[in-house]
Amino acid sequence: MTGAGHATAPYTPGLALFTDLYELTMLQAYYEEDLHEPAVFSLFVRRLPQRRNYLLACGLDTVLQQLEDLRFELSDLDYLAGLDRFSDRFLRWLEAFRFTGTVRAVPEGTPVFANEPILEVTAPLPEAQLIETLVMNQIHLQTVQASKAARLVTAAGERQVVDFGARRMHGLDAALKGARAFHIAGVASTSNVLAGKRYGVPVSGTMAHSYIQAHEDEAEAFAAFARLYPDTVLLVDTYDTLEGVRRIIQLGHERGEAFRVRAIRLDSGDLGTLARQARAMLDDAGLQQVGIFASGGLDEHAIAELLARDAPIDAFGVGTSMGISTDVPDLDIAYKLAEYAGEGRLKLSSGKPILPGAKQIFRRREGDRFAGDIIARQDENHPGEPLLQPVMHEGQRLPAHPRDLDTLRDHAREQRAQLPPAIRAIEPAETPYPVSVSPALQAHQDAVTRAIRARHATSGQRQHQGGVS
Amino acid sequence: MTGAGHATAPYTPGLALFTDLYELTMLQAYYEEDLHEPAVFSLFVRRLPQRRNYLLACGLDTVLQQLEDLRFELSDLDYLAGLDRFSDRFLRWLEAFRFTGTVRAVPEGTPVFANEPILEVTAPLPEAQLIETLVMNQIHLQTVQASKAARLVTAAGERQVVDFGARRMHGLDAALKGARAFHIAGVASTSNVLAGKRYGVPVSGTMAHSYIQAHEDEAEAFAAFARLYPDTVLLVDTYDTLEGVRRIIQLGHERGEAFRVRAIRLDSGDLGTLARQARAMLDDAGLQQVGIFASGGLDEHAIAELLARDAPIDAFGVGTSMGISTDVPDLDIAYKLAEYAGEGRLKLSSGKPILPGAKQIFRRREGDRFAGDIIARQDENHPGEPLLQPVMHEGQRLPAHPRDLDTLRDHAREQRAQLPPAIRAIEPAETPYPVSVSPALQAHQDAVTRAIRARHATSGQRQHQGGVS
Repeated sequence: MTGAGHATAPYTPGLALFTDLYELTMLQAYYEEDLHEPAVFSLFVRRLPQRRNYLLACGLDTVLQQLEDLRFELSDLDYLAGLDRFSDRFLRWLEAFRFTGTVRAVPEGTPVFANEPILEVTAPLPEAQLIETLVMNQIHLQTVQASKAARLVTAAGERQVVDFGARRMHGLDAALKGARAFHIAGVASTSNVLAGKRYGVPVSGTMAHSYIQAHEDEAEAFAAFARLYPDTVLLVDTYDTLEGVRRIIQLGHERGEAFRVRAIRLDSGDLGTLARQARAMLDDAGLQQVGIFASGGLDEHAIAELLARDAPIDAFGVGTSMGISTDVPDLDIAYKLAEYAGEGRLKLSSGKPILPGAKQIFRRREGDRFAGDIIARQDENHPGEPLLQPVMHEGQRLPAHPRDLDTLRDHAREQRAQLPPAIRAIEPAETPYPVSVSPALQAHQDAVTRAIRARHATSGQRQHQGGVS
Repeated sequence: MTGAGHATAPYTPGLALFTDLYELTMLQAYYEEDLHEPAVFSLFVRRLPQRRNYLLACGLDTVLQQLEDLRFELSDLDYLAGLDRFSDRFLRWLEAFRFTGTVRAVPEGTPVFANEPILEVTAPLPEAQLIETLVMNQIHLQTVQASKAARLVTAAGERQVVDFGARRMHGLDAALKGARAFHIAGVASTSNVLAGKRYGVPVSGTMAHSYIQAHEDEAEAFAAFARLYPDTVLLVDTYDTLEGVRRIIQLGHERGEAFRVRAIRLDSGDLGTLARQARAMLDDAGLQQVGIFASGGLDEHAIAELLARDAPIDAFGVGTSMGISTDVPDLDIAYKLAEYAGEGRLKLSSGKPILPGAKQIFRRREGDRFAGDIIARQDENHPGEPLLQPVMHEGQRLPAHPRDLDTLRDHAREQRAQLPPAIRAIEPAETPYPVSVSPALQAHQDAVTRAIRARHATSGQRQHQGGVS
């Protein structure tokens, strides 16, 4: 049996080319211009979507694995050579390319807010630059997924949520990484067998309409399936839901003591009403132990409404809404140069501020509740827990990483329990969670901005003069 | 140089477990019950989203490759054995499992509408069942992507659209398959280098803000980059967009004849106004040949509005909106049993009709326009072009498949040109494209429904009697 957390991701070859072409053209320019000084890049989400009071950081394990494995294969270099943009000298340099940098990151399963660095990379500029696309892709995906799943788990309360999303999630990688992210966020199990094998996430499943349809008779299908899998979940809505429930009850009578069907599944119609009717029928028949599993187009709001109306549903199968995070499928995530060669860097483009330099987040508690964060310069000290921890040094994971999945899941549960209730809720919080920028970081940002403007004005001046000469 | 269409997808091992657990539990039940007769499954989208007048079918090549490669590895069987649900006998049967079925499909790049089968599988029931999750996942993803990209391409008209989506798309697979789907739909190139290598999609790229930031001076950065890449695109909005444009002009003056910068890129602010101002400045400086490339949060509506206002923009870089299809990230796609052992099958669950049996779509033309479709039984004849074509026989692709990417792209362009203009448009069509169900298929559906109801009523009767006994 593959228990949660004991499997690890396999070697992921060939991902050095999972990058935007401009990263490679810039890399060649850095190489030619000898720009190899240490750079600090910060990964953060610029603002929270209206429908997210917090995000749940996720994806770090994947990224660390990929950074350790990152190298250009000969076929990659051949392909690049064919693009007629890269010198042989540069391609030879790429051949020896390894990621040798340092990564500090917020642990997976930790709530984060706008502008808080989820991860900071310190590495020679070309190394930190090349990985931009891959790191963003993976942290974005898994943070979108974990953040959404946490909402489903909150809505379902004590009841289990099961991941049914594989068929409509965006591709294989999303479905696999999703099952892991959902598990960290508190989802009970996944239908995705490969995710079970690869990550050790518990797998579960019931039956599909096609199984019922393939039989001449629904009762016959139920009987055959329950014979093979006595403690199964039987799908009752293929033809007529309440008729289906009657057939389950009939099967119960026929099997007597041998009847161990665990639950029925409702997958269409008015789930609240049908669940109540089915519950009454099952109870009247003495089948109190048979649970009700509901699925079919559910999201956190539908689940909350069903439970607010006391629908007697014991577990929820959730597919597309969680799998794609359909209400918020993307975050305004950025990976930005914050320091180069010891100097703070930012850009002044409209409305997209960068906090310069290496940073730390300090999270204060009041009692057993998170009370507010300060984003500060890395070397500052503030009350509260520093969230960014060293996870990779000189291209090697530090011993505490990877953490196993059970540890991450426990961590996420404890973390979410410490959020103020209005922030943890699925409805938009009236007051956002308080996050401030430390005076020292603010002063640093002002100083870097002033320095850039000064340099810029002078150089603009020169240019204007040059322009008319 | 890897030209479009000359690369093929590599062997994709280990995907047999990319399935929902219930497929495997059902498979074991089919195996035990000896349900191995031929089944027909139809893959279709139940209804079009409001913001899609048509869908562009995509993903077939991937699916055919995966079906050819589908097999259980020993580590897969070990994992399954550990779940304590599967007999050794069944696992040995899985070890020899191959997909031996027939697939008929609409060619990639063909417009499809609600309820039209994109693909039909005929195979022994367990084979057709197992592949449900994988086939749905891949066709759903790539059809979502191609359908969205076609809208961007329509909005941009003669101007190029470039895929910048890799960093925020949902994982590696989505970003890779997306670059291919976008290319089929008419997108000019992708920033995703691995997609270029793997699928032969043309790659392109400019520069990032971090390159500018890493230099002390913006003008110095422009000069260095243009020295290495004379015909490059330079990003001008890192500090102040119009100052950036002045620096480009200055560089033009300094370089004279050697100045070959192809375009500037605007990535923030009011793109229409900035493009007009930049165009005027470049023209005044005699740099008419320098184009303007725009990016930054663009979708089809933003592009249409910019062009309606005559913004002098020559090409568009599009990321998240296209990459995730944020307005419509999912389709109500289904893969449903339509026939088993020669008998039409359907389910009667509320609001989710199935058209039974193997089917064909006939598409009529009036002049050079598509005029309407008929969904019919496979053996019918109707005026118009039959869209579903045999693509796999006994588990082997037919010689015409894979088609190369250029062929698919040409096909998609010709197909989209034949759509009625209101259907091709990005605004919702007042009248949907006409799709009807043939009388014979309708009669078949009625007959199958009657047969199921009759059987169901009788069996329900028996049960009710049984229930009170």
